[in-house]
Amino acid sequence: MKPMRFGLIGYKFMGKAHSNALARLPMFFETDVPVERAVLCGRDAVWVKQASETLGFKEIETDWKKLVTRDDVDAIDITAPSNVHRDIAIAAAQAGKHVFCEKPLALTTADARLMQEAAEKAGVANQIGFNYRFAPALALAKKLIDDGKIGKIFHCRGSFLQDWIIDPDFPKVWRLDKTVCGSGALGDLCAHVIDAARYLVGDIAEVVGSLTTFVKERPVVERMAGLSGKASADAPRAKVDVDDASSFIARFENGAMGLFEATRFAQGHKNDMRIEVNGEKGSLKFEFERMNELWYFSAEDEPGEQGWRMIQVSEGVHPYWDKWWPAGHVIGFPETFVHELYEFVQCASQGRPCAPNFADGVAVAQIMDAVELSSQRCAWVDVGEI
Amino acid sequence: MKPMRFGLIGYKFMGKAHSNALARLPMFFETDVPVERAVLCGRDAVWVKQASETLGFKEIETDWKKLVTRDDVDAIDITAPSNVHRDIAIAAAQAGKHVFCEKPLALTTADARLMQEAAEKAGVANQIGFNYRFAPALALAKKLIDDGKIGKIFHCRGSFLQDWIIDPDFPKVWRLDKTVCGSGALGDLCAHVIDAARYLVGDIAEVVGSLTTFVKERPVVERMAGLSGKASADAPRAKVDVDDASSFIARFENGAMGLFEATRFAQGHKNDMRIEVNGEKGSLKFEFERMNELWYFSAEDEPGEQGWRMIQVSEGVHPYWDKWWPAGHVIGFPETFVHELYEFVQCASQGRPCAPNFADGVAVAQIMDAVELSSQRCAWVDVGEI
Amino acid sequence: MKPMRFGLIGYKFMGKAHSNALARLPMFFETDVPVERAVLCGRDAVWVKQASETLGFKEIETDWKKLVTRDDVDAIDITAPSNVHRDIAIAAAQAGKHVFCEKPLALTTADARLMQEAAEKAGVANQIGFNYRFAPALALAKKLIDDGKIGKIFHCRGSFLQDWIIDPDFPKVWRLDKTVCGSGALGDLCAHVIDAARYLVGDIAEVVGSLTTFVKERPVVERMAGLSGKASADAPRAKVDVDDASSFIARFENGAMGLFEATRFAQGHKNDMRIEVNGEKGSLKFEFERMNELWYFSAEDEPGEQGWRMIQVSEGVHPYWDKWWPAGHVIGFPETFVHELYEFVQCASQGRPCAPNFADGVAVAQIMDAVELSSQRCAWVDVGEI
Amino acid sequence: MKPMRFGLIGYKFMGKAHSNALARLPMFFETDVPVERAVLCGRDAVWVKQASETLGFKEIETDWKKLVTRDDVDAIDITAPSNVHRDIAIAAAQAGKHVFCEKPLALTTADARLMQEAAEKAGVANQIGFNYRFAPALALAKKLIDDGKIGKIFHCRGSFLQDWIIDPDFPKVWRLDKTVCGSGALGDLCAHVIDAARYLVGDIAEVVGSLTTFVKERPVVERMAGLSGKASADAPRAKVDVDDASSFIARFENGAMGLFEATRFAQGHKNDMRIEVNGEKGSLKFEFERMNELWYFSAEDEPGEQGWRMIQVSEGVHPYWDKWWPAGHVIGFPETFVHELYEFVQCASQGRPCAPNFADGVAVAQIMDAVELSSQRCAWVDVGEI
Repeated sequence: MKPMRFGLIGYKFMGKAHSNALARLPMFFETDVPVERAVLCGRDAVWVKQASETLGFKEIETDWKKLVTRDDVDAIDITAPSNVHRDIAIAAAQAGKHVFCEKPLALTTADARLMQEAAEKAGVANQIGFNYRFAPALALAKKLIDDGKIGKIFHCRGSFLQDWIIDPDFPKVWRLDKTVCGSGALGDLCAHVIDAARYLVGDIAEVVGSLTTFVKERPVVERMAGLSGKASADAPRAKVDVDDASSFIARFENGAMGLFEATRFAQGHKNDMRIEVNGEKGSLKFEFERMNELWYFSAEDEPGEQGWRMIQVSEGVHPYWDKWWPAGHVIGFPETFVHELYEFVQCASQGRPCAPNFADGVAVAQIMDAVELSSQRCAWVDVGEI
Repeated sequence: MKPMRFGLIGYKFMGKAHSNALARLPMFFETDVPVERAVLCGRDAVWVKQASETLGFKEIETDWKKLVTRDDVDAIDITAPSNVHRDIAIAAAQAGKHVFCEKPLALTTADARLMQEAAEKAGVANQIGFNYRFAPALALAKKLIDDGKIGKIFHCRGSFLQDWIIDPDFPKVWRLDKTVCGSGALGDLCAHVIDAARYLVGDIAEVVGSLTTFVKERPVVERMAGLSGKASADAPRAKVDVDDASSFIARFENGAMGLFEATRFAQGHKNDMRIEVNGEKGSLKFEFERMNELWYFSAEDEPGEQGWRMIQVSEGVHPYWDKWWPAGHVIGFPETFVHELYEFVQCASQGRPCAPNFADGVAVAQIMDAVELSSQRCAWVDVGEI
Repeated sequence: MKPMRFGLIGYKFMGKAHSNALARLPMFFETDVPVERAVLCGRDAVWVKQASETLGFKEIETDWKKLVTRDDVDAIDITAPSNVHRDIAIAAAQAGKHVFCEKPLALTTADARLMQEAAEKAGVANQIGFNYRFAPALALAKKLIDDGKIGKIFHCRGSFLQDWIIDPDFPKVWRLDKTVCGSGALGDLCAHVIDAARYLVGDIAEVVGSLTTFVKERPVVERMAGLSGKASADAPRAKVDVDDASSFIARFENGAMGLFEATRFAQGHKNDMRIEVNGEKGSLKFEFERMNELWYFSAEDEPGEQGWRMIQVSEGVHPYWDKWWPAGHVIGFPETFVHELYEFVQCASQGRPCAPNFADGVAVAQIMDAVELSSQRCAWVDVGEI
Repeated sequence: MKPMRFGLIGYKFMGKAHSNALARLPMFFETDVPVERAVLCGRDAVWVKQASETLGFKEIETDWKKLVTRDDVDAIDITAPSNVHRDIAIAAAQAGKHVFCEKPLALTTADARLMQEAAEKAGVANQIGFNYRFAPALALAKKLIDDGKIGKIFHCRGSFLQDWIIDPDFPKVWRLDKTVCGSGALGDLCAHVIDAARYLVGDIAEVVGSLTTFVKERPVVERMAGLSGKASADAPRAKVDVDDASSFIARFENGAMGLFEATRFAQGHKNDMRIEVNGEKGSLKFEFERMNELWYFSAEDEPGEQGWRMIQVSEGVHPYWDKWWPAGHVIGFPETFVHELYEFVQCASQGRPCAPNFADGVAVAQIMDAVELSSQRCAWVDVGEI
């Protein structure tokens, strides 16, 4: 059977996460076609060569333009910085490759739309890396909603809180540079929450929000190291042009009210992504740092016995769990990538649309742009206006 | 020593809570002056007589106008419906009585200001019933902030979620009637959160918010029973003119960002009041339903050992706890009233200003009015405008 | 209607808790007969007089022998130290008074049996102060078991952990003196857990256990203060003759296995009483420091939706909650006394047997004696042997 | 550099977990020598061939006797059933191979000792698969104890609760067959807890315990499937000769008291392994199902600010976390195998003793045998007697 040969661009944080997932897929999941780690692509030949060995790729490439047209590659997986997503994805789609792109899709909604159009026109599988959806507990939440267990939804509140740039001497790394990343807490963090909200509740019609930059100038970074970086003691300071924190109120198209917040200034919160949905018949709560758990309140339980059920989502009957271990042998962040790439491979090989796909990436970008515009205008903005 | 003789108006939910607290004060707390349950006041002589016996009052009165001028009463405690707060409080102050008034102070900010002016002019002690402040854990949060443990504050998020009116056939009780209560979830619930936020973080400069009424018409109530009530099967429906849910974004005067929500449509949340503060050096979290606990994260703990400390606020060293039991013998909602009335008696007898006082009641009213105005205007509102 | 006039012996920790409960009963609960705080009894006339005023008693008595025979007293409530329980309770019963006695019933099982016999012979109401049963959440646990929601029980694990005597210089207070209290962690703490286990699961047939005293000598106390006390710097040291910690394994008569532990050496645990029951159809967990919550797992929930339900036991439909506040307005330790005295008054006035009564006190004493004997023998002991 | 070439025996639950870990090691951890998945060994050539492809092994072997003497294999990793551990491990050691063996080491303490002797005599690296030690949070607990943060230890309580064989019609699978697995809940589950207790607290001197089999006969299994299996409707029943549940009290050599329990009959507990340690200066709590968290109480925090710190063990400063993701990107059960095999490779290549090694496996076996003997004798047993 013809395998799906992956060309992966990038080999750091996300590149490792994806390589790792591709290596594990065949051990636990049966895909319709075999998965191959074919070509790893990066700009520095020495580094990419070394990475290809530890990450298990057969060959390397230093120019993504060559990669996307290679005959021996079926799918392009983009984990490069956000400012190159657009060009790679469009070229890959035009070359007839299936495309998996990390979030955010692009720096602007306009760019994201171009990518969506290119992928749809080429008829290739396209998926965006909103991997939090693939925590089994969040997938179970979706199932319970689809099964009618929650009923009409009144509220959705989501947040993503981190605390790694509170120190005013923390340097201006690339995640704080608008030309590279497009947006700060809003694009990096809130994007996941908005995707989860759309997944569970539906589309957002209107927003009013506020973007804040608490530390307006930071030392210029000299050398990156993970999320962080080093700046010399006498480094000049540069203006921070992305948001440290963002919050917004939303009206969903179905009448539900939303409340969202993302920040990198919430001391004690490391990677605290949460979402809660309240409906007529019940409620659901999820927090990523305890990603094996889903909290479910059912107003249909017998009176006097109603309570928030902590469902430990780790049984064979739960999403993806028939592939893993006996109940209670909890999984983590790395497994979300296994799940999302499993879906990508299956959808691509079966010709089904992926979810979340580039259209979802565009929808999230629109909402983020609307929040940013609202913050400038100090007023509500109709998402359709974007 | 001259006792402080209380005249209490109202004997239902809040009236019982206050009577109970006055009865318990001398058993556990030493006040500078003895406290007496002197006169209970209500409109129906038969009912008030019976209530006075179970609640331990010596005499009764059926007309509050007579009560406030009695020579044998030193303090007026108002737990009557919100629409009569203004007139009683002003009359009591003018008669030279100390005044304790349940929240909200009045139906409008203008009325609240009149009350504040009357009390200040008369020089009487005046306090408002924001009893959540008097949970020892919230008092400890205040102390930690005042001690500099949190540092500059970046975020404050507060919410008050309940779920008792989701059923569209739940009748239009007085808490859903604007002429009696002034406001819905915003005034009844969010007021507590706003007070807590001002207590911990400081004044709010600007807001943008949204008020929502999910169920726009409800059956007319026939007979009240606690928070609920009965409506006949063929009861006519009346327009609901208060909010079922409210949310708003705030900018504090010190630059912190706020996010607030109150609703009666959050399935599974019974009396879920929460507040969290994130600062430069640490964070604090409080939730009323586990009111004996304060969560504290200190970024000054040693690296590798940092974490959210669940402080069980029930030791002799904690606020009010030297009066109660050995550590861990947890207290509840009723004890918040003991604490607030203890402070009222002490401040009144020592001639110190109470906290929270009528000025705080006015400040909270202003913010709520600004949120309401913002909801109408679909734009940010400066709180100073109110 | 003839009231029930209480004569209360003791006015410290437990005396205050009982007085307070008697004062609150008429405000919230309707008893068949009115309750009166008639006579407060203590050895020191000056102190008891002062206490009677703050605790609301009409008269005082300094000799319990006189108290128990007064015509104007219907019920004797014993909160004096454990070593005088026996004589007072027997005299009171013989005088035809209803008797409420704090736990432990007596210093030995033999003494406890004499008390039970006296009360039963006199036909008076008799109850023991295992107040933890009266946390609504624990009462709900009992109801769920009685309703068949748990099925055949396999496991019961209970513990009561405190941390107040870890310091080896903490003095030998009365709770560490066998002649006054009879037992250490076992009698003071584990007794509550054993009672809860019998309440939920049934009688215990056999035990094997171990009593440990980590600090074998302590400074002689000079002056008590709450649970603690002061010793002078050069105080002589005395042998500690009670257990600092106890643990035991039990076989219940119905085949369930039990595991129990009590200690005063568990750093960070203040008043941490817990009990869990695992059965064929479900499980239940309760911890006192979050006493408004009951955790319930039902294996009869739909597969994929099963989880531990955190039932916030504070709704009108829950035990005792129709008397209190709207849902979520949580209660605490003080309210357990209101509930237990409500039951005592109702049972006494209606001629029904109380629960837990002196027979339950005897049964708990037997189990504790069996554990102590097992610790000496280093072997299993049949509880029936005691 | 000479690689370490692994020969892995077994390819089901544990075989997959180990293969997966070996594949991931080079991606995230730098080992002193490269790691190779060389040979996979199983009895059925067809199945093992297929497994070798999905698990990434180069060659296969169907006879472990051949495997252990192959020149192109440096380390033998044993995940076969417990009843063949002894022979394989001894043969491998005698052939000069490093040996990693899943727990339990053997069916009896005597066999375990033979394995230890063989490995020590051969001077090969030897390690046992107590992987729970390698949860970073448990490793941090060890570090805090070693750093003196807990002080003298008074209590250790551990438990491992599951619920998968409550149904009396669940068949007698191999984990319920003494000839294959040696022991039930005690050996399968409690072994992990005992290892963790020895790791944190030290050696155990004496025990008294009880083994219980609630369901004494079960249908004979026809076909295994994961932990479970199928039995035909009219399957004959066979005696269950291992324990469904075990509990014991222990005295540690350093004077601490222990309390341990393992069961497969605790409804609602899936893989609930917990351990808590209470010392003079602080306490620690760990539960596997929330394995990214360590709870730490320090009595050295300032009075009034003391509380249980929930340390989310996921920062670069925490054990193993410099190899993984940014803080809060939680890991799971699979990563414990990466950590333990990393240690094995490093110790083997550097000639350092492994931990936990076969001597630890023997020590745990001794304690389990002592518990079993105690259950038969109904009395305390000295562990040294085994």
